[in-house]
Amino acid sequence: MTGPAAPTPSALAALRPLPLTAVRLHPDGLLGGWQARNAAATLPHCVDQLAAYGNLDNLRRVTGDADAPYAGMWFADTDVYKTLEAAAWELGRSGGSAEFLTDVAALLEKAQDPDGYLNSYYQVDHRDRQWTDLGFSHEMYAAGHLIQAAVAAARAAPQVLASQQVVAVARRFADLLVRRFGPEGTEAVDGHPEVETALVELYRLTGHRPYLDQARRLVDLRGYGRLGPGRFGPRYWQDDTPIRDQTEVTGHAVRQQYLLAGAVDVAVETGDNDLLAAVERLWRSALTTRTYLTGGQGSRHKDEGFGDAYELPPDRAYAETCAAIGSFHTAWRLLLATGKAHYADELERVLYNGIAASTAVDGRAFFYTNPLQLRTGHDGSHEDTPSQRLSWYSCACCPPNLARLMASLHAYAATGDAGGLQLHLYAAGRIAGHGRVVEVRTDYPWNERIAIVLTEAADGPWTLALRVPGWCRDARVTLNGWPVRVAAEEGYLRLSRTWQAGDQVELVLAMPPRMVAAHPRVDAVRGSVALARGPVVYCVEHADLPAALAGALFEDLELDATEPLRLVTSDGLAPVTIGVPLRARAAPPDGLYSSCHQPGQGRPGAQPARPGSTPTATVAAIPYFLWANRAAEPMRIWIPLATPAG
Amino acid sequence: MTGPAAPTPSALAALRPLPLTAVRLHPDGLLGGWQARNAAATLPHCVDQLAAYGNLDNLRRVTGDADAPYAGMWFADTDVYKTLEAAAWELGRSGGSAEFLTDVAALLEKAQDPDGYLNSYYQVDHRDRQWTDLGFSHEMYAAGHLIQAAVAAARAAPQVLASQQVVAVARRFADLLVRRFGPEGTEAVDGHPEVETALVELYRLTGHRPYLDQARRLVDLRGYGRLGPGRFGPRYWQDDTPIRDQTEVTGHAVRQQYLLAGAVDVAVETGDNDLLAAVERLWRSALTTRTYLTGGQGSRHKDEGFGDAYELPPDRAYAETCAAIGSFHTAWRLLLATGKAHYADELERVLYNGIAASTAVDGRAFFYTNPLQLRTGHDGSHEDTPSQRLSWYSCACCPPNLARLMASLHAYAATGDAGGLQLHLYAAGRIAGHGRVVEVRTDYPWNERIAIVLTEAADGPWTLALRVPGWCRDARVTLNGWPVRVAAEEGYLRLSRTWQAGDQVELVLAMPPRMVAAHPRVDAVRGSVALARGPVVYCVEHADLPAALAGALFEDLELDATEPLRLVTSDGLAPVTIGVPLRARAAPPDGLYSSCHQPGQGRPGAQPARPGSTPTATVAAIPYFLWANRAAEPMRIWIPLATPAG
Repeated sequence: MTGPAAPTPSALAALRPLPLTAVRLHPDGLLGGWQARNAAATLPHCVDQLAAYGNLDNLRRVTGDADAPYAGMWFADTDVYKTLEAAAWELGRSGGSAEFLTDVAALLEKAQDPDGYLNSYYQVDHRDRQWTDLGFSHEMYAAGHLIQAAVAAARAAPQVLASQQVVAVARRFADLLVRRFGPEGTEAVDGHPEVETALVELYRLTGHRPYLDQARRLVDLRGYGRLGPGRFGPRYWQDDTPIRDQTEVTGHAVRQQYLLAGAVDVAVETGDNDLLAAVERLWRSALTTRTYLTGGQGSRHKDEGFGDAYELPPDRAYAETCAAIGSFHTAWRLLLATGKAHYADELERVLYNGIAASTAVDGRAFFYTNPLQLRTGHDGSHEDTPSQRLSWYSCACCPPNLARLMASLHAYAATGDAGGLQLHLYAAGRIAGHGRVVEVRTDYPWNERIAIVLTEAADGPWTLALRVPGWCRDARVTLNGWPVRVAAEEGYLRLSRTWQAGDQVELVLAMPPRMVAAHPRVDAVRGSVALARGPVVYCVEHADLPAALAGALFEDLELDATEPLRLVTSDGLAPVTIGVPLRARAAPPDGLYSSCHQPGQGRPGAQPARPGSTPTATVAAIPYFLWANRAAEPMRIWIPLATPAG
Repeated sequence: MTGPAAPTPSALAALRPLPLTAVRLHPDGLLGGWQARNAAATLPHCVDQLAAYGNLDNLRRVTGDADAPYAGMWFADTDVYKTLEAAAWELGRSGGSAEFLTDVAALLEKAQDPDGYLNSYYQVDHRDRQWTDLGFSHEMYAAGHLIQAAVAAARAAPQVLASQQVVAVARRFADLLVRRFGPEGTEAVDGHPEVETALVELYRLTGHRPYLDQARRLVDLRGYGRLGPGRFGPRYWQDDTPIRDQTEVTGHAVRQQYLLAGAVDVAVETGDNDLLAAVERLWRSALTTRTYLTGGQGSRHKDEGFGDAYELPPDRAYAETCAAIGSFHTAWRLLLATGKAHYADELERVLYNGIAASTAVDGRAFFYTNPLQLRTGHDGSHEDTPSQRLSWYSCACCPPNLARLMASLHAYAATGDAGGLQLHLYAAGRIAGHGRVVEVRTDYPWNERIAIVLTEAADGPWTLALRVPGWCRDARVTLNGWPVRVAAEEGYLRLSRTWQAGDQVELVLAMPPRMVAAHPRVDAVRGSVALARGPVVYCVEHADLPAALAGALFEDLELDATEPLRLVTSDGLAPVTIGVPLRARAAPPDGLYSSCHQPGQGRPGAQPARPGSTPTATVAAIPYFLWANRAAEPMRIWIPLATPAG
């Protein structure tokens, strides 16, 4: 899924993406810094890992240029495609070398079968099994990532000859899909959605209607059990109920999000209001019953899946990085389709928390799962439950997915059309479009002030729309120093006037530290609170315990809610920390369970503070996305509330 | 693992099992009723399922008497062995037909290779892979279950000729193991412990020392990484650290418990105090950090494993039935080895809760996992997370494991030697041994009174030891109607005298309903309490909500701790229910998370009862082991505590 540029106009699109080059983020801002780190570290790291882990050699086996055994997962080609997509976005963003794009394009062209088929796992050892196991083969899924890489190359790096080469390869595969699985072919879907959104993007790029029709066909054919039960039942791959009838998100979280993203694309391009409404309903189901405070989704390790409603364990949160990226992509599409600010709110939440936490500060190590708690003595010896980020995974879907998102991140900051500009993500940078140029100056999210300076205003009146995040209770705006009394409408402050170059808008989004409580049906965090400031969720990490608490077991800490929270700026890992009043419970008895014979004889679980508790001390909570960048140590987002003594 | 009869005397055995025929439980008592149900329903059901699912045909493929494809898991033979063991115990307990034993014995003898090898998966299609994948092949594990079936047949049904046939088959396989993996053979262990305890039992039966030596060798060779990392890392199969150095239970819960049981057997028979101490230490680690209130163990679905310390989610409890049975077997061995009452306490807890809950009231459906909570709208469409018991599983290890335990359950009620009798589990029945006979008359655990009548007293003084369960705060005893002032010593009331036939002892174990709180480090049930009475854990099931609460969402119920608990006897599903004061919270907002900006501005998670709460109504909580015997409906053991209004 891509930062779209110039989609086909549709009756169902409330907002329009800006041209891909319209937004530039400054590397000294947080988001621009992430982009710079991605370019300098993550993307080269991915390229290196593809060579080290044999992904490129897998393709060279097809061309006869390598003879090592096939390496990695059967869908390892997709790591190549996602890295290729990232490289293409990065070429468009910052220029630089086109070597990887050029090399891989040539390799793909050479490896592709004459009929358009391309999949290194099935082209050498398993030719007889092509298209025989659509549930798990990931063949269309892989085609989708190839197509998305091609679309990115065409949009972001049209000047590179290899871009057209990749588009040609992708089109040949897409044409094969249409022949084989289109109206003249088999009724079938892939176990892992992804090609749906890719085909719509390819249609947007080429205008070739059969691609859109095929995407729609795949959305409509899903939900009738064609994939069979598989290992986890048909809900795992969203094949038990057609999406239009589905009432809750279900199954594998990444599959569900990718399907939703594709369905929005189909709905928008075909003017299908019912389909769009179905996605909005499912989105709401996800957000109100199955989403972590970080925006992460997926509560179960067993099937990487959504669990039941309100099943949101912080310790065993799966919250796969790819699911967070999928949620980001779906949120973006719903924002464009509807213009509703709450989709942008989610874009922001999942970006600063669920997505950002997955990458180490050095850009070269990653979480696949993103738990909200790590206990003392956690067994992090397996890659399913690591205590720290790893440089790569046996299933390495997440790192290159991060690379492609970060390389295109600027494309999600704003939208615009003849009527004005809409700012959704605040970051230091420059936005140009439709004859207007604005500079955004801010240290957001560390600082609550966002200055917007018009450097080119264009003629005539237009509207500057500024999103007021859902977490913000006090948004104020000034124009050239004068307060502007305007209320947010549906999540946006809209300033309409004939702008002049030099006009300055300042938006202040008050960001006191806050405590957050979960819905009482979320059993797993009952009696606990989380800490947040602005869009950023905070956590307490063992490394930050002061001497007064260092001797306590991390799991015995509780929050003294009689003391205030305090903001502290820092030169350390986190620019802004929240000072949290914590104390350690008195050492409790060894046994796991204790009895009292009647309610009147004492209320277990709600005792007054025991005499042995430590005095309250202030602990610097850090942004969750920065956790696990020091030694592997316990961490938690949800902190048990102490019951006041007496 | 078996209800041992006549183990070799050892310096390390504090208690002695009674002869297998010494205890008979009355079918009108709860435990005797379970045994009767097992004989009438569960065991025949297992025999039927083995035929229906192809387990017997798998073996007939080896003998050339069937040619269907191999069916089921690669260790499907073990379902046959466990059913065979159950049939043998049942022959000893109640007599009846020896047809299954006779038929299977002949089949096994015919299927066995000349060298002793027997495994229908590896004897037909995969001969070249014999002994090549010890981590997952389960070949020694299967041999262990064969051996245990043989030991059971020899002890419980020596009169049946086929018993000696099975013993001969088992010995040939055991001899092969000794040749191949003994001091003259390869240093190797099996990924799934189980053969260790079986070999000790075969040694006890035969006196053939190499079997004991091999068991010890397997215990000692484990923990050095010989099995490799597998899919889940070496901790999964307890191969990362030698058991003597292990400080915490780890990995796959069934594997860990079976290893512990085998290690106790080895320790006892070889007089190895250090090994016994290691097991006691690990047991304590399990009980103080990784055991559910039901005695269930295993907190993760992904690897069927123990999680981190205090990671005990009620909804995603794995608590595999086989792990509970393994815990029962380990507890029994530790009880015999040490005489410590707390092992008998655990025997009782896991029996009445973790184990009992796995079987339907009709004895023909079973849980594999045993969650402590089921939410409204739970997706029970897959056998990994069923909402009700299923008649069989694709991996059907648990049902025949239940059958063999239930058929031998009487053997765990009491121990005895020249010095006296020790009663551990209370159940209506008759205990005979060492010239003494006592009748136990009780409706325990529904009734707190246990009458013990001596019908044959034997000569001279001896001691009747009566366990006082750890949950009991008020135990009283009378002898022939006169109160006896004796304090429990280390968990047992010891009555020493020269007994007369006709003497009557009455033990009263006070059983008020009680609330139970979890250790504050158990995050998953913070702010909640459970209900219990005597050894039985209770739960609230949706079917029992009164009209006043029927309209509420089950997840909105909370316990009004200002009202008392009440016991109610019933003619329904449960003889005794606990009347629990519940109310439903006012409908909360839709969003999953809500903020308050400072602690002083309100304490989220600890609000007073909101105006919209329903009035408190009494709900009949039922024993957990009886849940899911009506429609598939929500259930919970841990109930959120309401905060008093005002």
